[in-house]
Amino acid sequence: MGHVSVKNVVVSDPFWSKILGLVKDVMLPYQWRALNDEVEGAEKSFCVHNFKAAARLNARRGEPDFREPRWSDPGFSVFPKENETPDPDKFYGFVFQDSDLYKWLEAAAYVLASEKDPELEEKCDGAIDLIASAQLPSGYIDTYYILSGMERALTNLRDNHELYCMGHLIEAACAYYEATGKDKLLNVARGFADFVYDKLGPTGRPGYPGHEIAEMALARLSELTGERKYLELSELFIKRRGTEPNYFTAEKRKNAALDNKAVSEDTPERLDYYQAAKPVTEQAEAVGHAVRCMYLASGVADAARLTGDKELYDACDRLWNSAVHEKMYITGGVGGTRDGEAFSYPFDLPSDDAYSETCAAVGLVFFSRRMLELRPRGEYADIMERALYNACLAGMALDGESFFYVNPLEVVPEAVRRDSRLSHVDTRRQKWFGCACCPPNLARLLTSLGSYAYLADGDTILVNLYVGGSLDIELHGAPLRLLVRSDITKSGHVELTAELERPLRFTLALRIPGWTELKGGGIHVPPGKTCETKDGYMYISGPWNPGDTVTADFPMPVKFNVASPAVRECLDRVCVSRGPIVYCAEEADNGKDLHLLRLDTSRAAEIEVKSVKILDRELPALSVPAKRTRDAGEGLYRELSEENTDSTSALLIPYFAWANRAEGEMRVWIRYC
Amino acid sequence: MGHVSVKNVVVSDPFWSKILGLVKDVMLPYQWRALNDEVEGAEKSFCVHNFKAAARLNARRGEPDFREPRWSDPGFSVFPKENETPDPDKFYGFVFQDSDLYKWLEAAAYVLASEKDPELEEKCDGAIDLIASAQLPSGYIDTYYILSGMERALTNLRDNHELYCMGHLIEAACAYYEATGKDKLLNVARGFADFVYDKLGPTGRPGYPGHEIAEMALARLSELTGERKYLELSELFIKRRGTEPNYFTAEKRKNAALDNKAVSEDTPERLDYYQAAKPVTEQAEAVGHAVRCMYLASGVADAARLTGDKELYDACDRLWNSAVHEKMYITGGVGGTRDGEAFSYPFDLPSDDAYSETCAAVGLVFFSRRMLELRPRGEYADIMERALYNACLAGMALDGESFFYVNPLEVVPEAVRRDSRLSHVDTRRQKWFGCACCPPNLARLLTSLGSYAYLADGDTILVNLYVGGSLDIELHGAPLRLLVRSDITKSGHVELTAELERPLRFTLALRIPGWTELKGGGIHVPPGKTCETKDGYMYISGPWNPGDTVTADFPMPVKFNVASPAVRECLDRVCVSRGPIVYCAEEADNGKDLHLLRLDTSRAAEIEVKSVKILDRELPALSVPAKRTRDAGEGLYRELSEENTDSTSALLIPYFAWANRAEGEMRVWIRYC
Repeated sequence: MGHVSVKNVVVSDPFWSKILGLVKDVMLPYQWRALNDEVEGAEKSFCVHNFKAAARLNARRGEPDFREPRWSDPGFSVFPKENETPDPDKFYGFVFQDSDLYKWLEAAAYVLASEKDPELEEKCDGAIDLIASAQLPSGYIDTYYILSGMERALTNLRDNHELYCMGHLIEAACAYYEATGKDKLLNVARGFADFVYDKLGPTGRPGYPGHEIAEMALARLSELTGERKYLELSELFIKRRGTEPNYFTAEKRKNAALDNKAVSEDTPERLDYYQAAKPVTEQAEAVGHAVRCMYLASGVADAARLTGDKELYDACDRLWNSAVHEKMYITGGVGGTRDGEAFSYPFDLPSDDAYSETCAAVGLVFFSRRMLELRPRGEYADIMERALYNACLAGMALDGESFFYVNPLEVVPEAVRRDSRLSHVDTRRQKWFGCACCPPNLARLLTSLGSYAYLADGDTILVNLYVGGSLDIELHGAPLRLLVRSDITKSGHVELTAELERPLRFTLALRIPGWTELKGGGIHVPPGKTCETKDGYMYISGPWNPGDTVTADFPMPVKFNVASPAVRECLDRVCVSRGPIVYCAEEADNGKDLHLLRLDTSRAAEIEVKSVKILDRELPALSVPAKRTRDAGEGLYRELSEENTDSTSALLIPYFAWANRAEGEMRVWIRYC
Repeated sequence: MGHVSVKNVVVSDPFWSKILGLVKDVMLPYQWRALNDEVEGAEKSFCVHNFKAAARLNARRGEPDFREPRWSDPGFSVFPKENETPDPDKFYGFVFQDSDLYKWLEAAAYVLASEKDPELEEKCDGAIDLIASAQLPSGYIDTYYILSGMERALTNLRDNHELYCMGHLIEAACAYYEATGKDKLLNVARGFADFVYDKLGPTGRPGYPGHEIAEMALARLSELTGERKYLELSELFIKRRGTEPNYFTAEKRKNAALDNKAVSEDTPERLDYYQAAKPVTEQAEAVGHAVRCMYLASGVADAARLTGDKELYDACDRLWNSAVHEKMYITGGVGGTRDGEAFSYPFDLPSDDAYSETCAAVGLVFFSRRMLELRPRGEYADIMERALYNACLAGMALDGESFFYVNPLEVVPEAVRRDSRLSHVDTRRQKWFGCACCPPNLARLLTSLGSYAYLADGDTILVNLYVGGSLDIELHGAPLRLLVRSDITKSGHVELTAELERPLRFTLALRIPGWTELKGGGIHVPPGKTCETKDGYMYISGPWNPGDTVTADFPMPVKFNVASPAVRECLDRVCVSRGPIVYCAEEADNGKDLHLLRLDTSRAAEIEVKSVKILDRELPALSVPAKRTRDAGEGLYRELSEENTDSTSALLIPYFAWANRAEGEMRVWIRYC
């Protein structure tokens, strides 16, 4: 299955339009100001500062000597001391600071792909000119090394994120080229990729990125340009990873020797963080830093698709099963432990102590679409939808102005305040992060939503997500517009109309969401088509006439979900969902001590589907009959006695909408009776 | 109420004799070898090494110049590098290494108090000679500073534990004097206490210990010697603590300035670790390092008793209520978080992630006896008993050869192995610890058990713990021997016989354990006495004839305990107890996946009280009807459905006896139905 360009999709949907409007009108302008250090009170980014400094330096000296005097690597980040005036010629920020501008450009490109915006395009062109002037004549571009000294460029692949920045540069360049046809950034990206191919390609050093993303980016660049070498480099990165002798271990030893430092030996657990303890084809489990793991898996899936390599496909399949069937929160979030922002062991999914980084959920969406491209199975789209509507959307406030990096499933503010073990958790979304990976990552995902909603291959169109709007493609030389109306978050009603100039023969494959049960009815197909249901999709084939409309009414009952008993944390708790949306209880609606609530599952018939307004958004909500435990006993420990409860009802709101009112408790997994 | 000397109590009890035998015959000899670095394969202690090195240095130079060239404090511990031959003249180990020898001596003294053992006494005398020769002529003794340079002695009270070592020295000295009448160690202790009084007393610097214990030790020294100044120093330490300007903060700033180091400012949370954020009389909550907090509270209780200071009593009362009613595990363990080995916020009592250090439970026993001495209330003895029979005893293996530092209430070995958040937890007891505080602390508690079992005041004898054996005291100039037979861990049957030379009038106060309900019967009193029940004790007064025997049969039903609903971790779980003993389920008896068990509380009548043999010990056990959840569903998340269960029974063993068979799961709080 081939993916569909954002350019071919229009999103005009009661649910998504509002969100995409926020991304375009609030997030992107805000992020632009953040990148330029123009946000009052926010931590400085220094991102644009670094590019400007590099450009000035290049103008002065041209290509630097790669053998210039050795410098001591200052490490992960450099920030000016308090009251220190930043040196205009120095690098500041995290080693991966360049990537923030690339992510912003990628998101802006997706906006420009779907609508004209000369002001935004001018801003982008200016940024691209700056980037191009920061690139060395050799093609190398990473402002950290350009400004700090080139002697050690590409010598700390494990920690210093040059190949990560290259990956984001390529993603932005491809997106901008697809959106505008302008190739200046694409040429910058190719120049850097060529440079890296020269140094780390088949005849270079056997390195690979510490933080993955180059794998999928290079695959995309290869597809866009038709240049096989980029795919080759991607494959090398994938297949070298974790082989013996371990590149990261050797690199670390070499750097330690150069710096006269002691070196501690890597354990498999330590290498797991980088998915580098063994080759991906031998990995049976999703391990380590969750974002990196999902990015690697996405790159492996791309390579599997483009090369047909069965071993790589099997690796994807194993990583998928481990991540999704043993290590995923019900929100689609991944990463059970803050320690390394990582996957924990199977079925370890603590609610309060979750990491569930927004970027990791974004990564799971990337991976899921790529699995769909490999094999069109409804499960992949189900998970994509689950992560998107829940863990991803939870990462941004309803007003688009603040963000979560970590997405727990249970929050008690007193616990977060007083328990240092929860120091990674925020009870309110933050304006911006020093390490600002999540907000722009979310922006580039949401602005490219269309490319997740559909896939196309030959005369088959796969509808994976029910996002209202339209898809334009050409089929047998004729234009086809698929008009989609969707109310998937509220009623489950969907209409798809084929706008055609003339009758056309094709197959429209509708995903039957995993959360619904059609029981024979539900999808109304215009006459003259054959319908076949396979792997979670209904394939509707035949000749289509202009205006032919498929109507689907996916039953969307309220569900009480439980986790496998292997998830110790969730025993005797339910999580309520309806359609694609996972619900939670918040203190604003239900008072404090949410752990005392019991949802009354015996009175499911009395559940009311409601609507609540939070900020200016109308959101679906559920009123569920419940009981509240009354603390009738005395003392810290007492004898078991009949539980005293008061009848009540719990108002549940979508998980993604929590923390948009006053600070308070929140809980996804709730006791029941 | 005054406490009773170990010398006056004999323990001969089916439950305790075995344990005390292990302490004497296994733990103390083993610890002696550990202190002398004679245990193969164990981390070296260097404890005796340091004393020997200090003694040699003293012999060479006498009193050193306190103004000798300044050295840079190497910090918390110094160990030789791998393959480095230790320098015989250098200090090694933790800054508090001296205390290990003092703790050993204290435990040995309690053994000598109850039985003659010339070989042990000779060993002790040798150790005391060594200690005395390591003392400086000025009275100062701490081998860390003597060997590293005296210029900075007593200048880092917060971290460097000199006053902690002094406290243990005093405790050992008092115990050894009481046991043997020999005053050599007592004179060493007094010499050091006098030195410290001179430097930090009323006319000295306003310091106090970073790790408390000196407070209670000085009170004991004052009681033993009749010297008021030691009590005065104890009170100063207590009352200065946490006052402004904060001594620790000032000390840290001063040391940083001396060393040209940057200093980070103390937050109240940071000072809480040391119970030094505010004066103890203003503390409403037990906070910070749990051992330190319990030691401080014990010292405050001593001072309150000896001075009658109401404010100090109120402080004890508040700390007690906070520690026991909001922050104590059902095992009597305290310390809910590994972060700072500390009390967490109220009702935060995680089972798997518990800290519950053995020493903290020992500290709670210290504190509880002192609260009893202030006010004879059954609750204090109940908690003393709870901590002793459960959290304390869990700290040592049934064979006395290995130990736990951390005492979780739920262990899943795979979780401990794979989840770095549980890196503080051991699934098997360890032979010895580099930081060996717990084993010798347990030894000194257990060998002095008699002094916890009884209190005496005028003609009233309080029986707090039912430990079989005898108590000898003098009453109205005549000897009284109280013979006790106790089967409190198995049947609840207790007999107390007054062995008298002639009739005597006195009051015997029997604690009515909190876990029993007498309902009118249960205690049979010989004729001619009046009985009054007050605050958890039955006061039996009148004339006693030789051979008068009180028989008590405390009903000891199996109890299903629940925690206050405020303890989120324990919701919907029960913990089974019988008499003083808290029970747990272990994998060895019940297979893996203990979280799938549900104890069937509706079939309580079918519970069988059994006996199991673990290693060579016969232990009480309970067979409880149960169900085991069968995982009938598929997938990580599914819809709620009727739970599938298999009928089974769970075998529960005493919590203290866990981890004496193969490594496996353990669980105290169990689901129920």
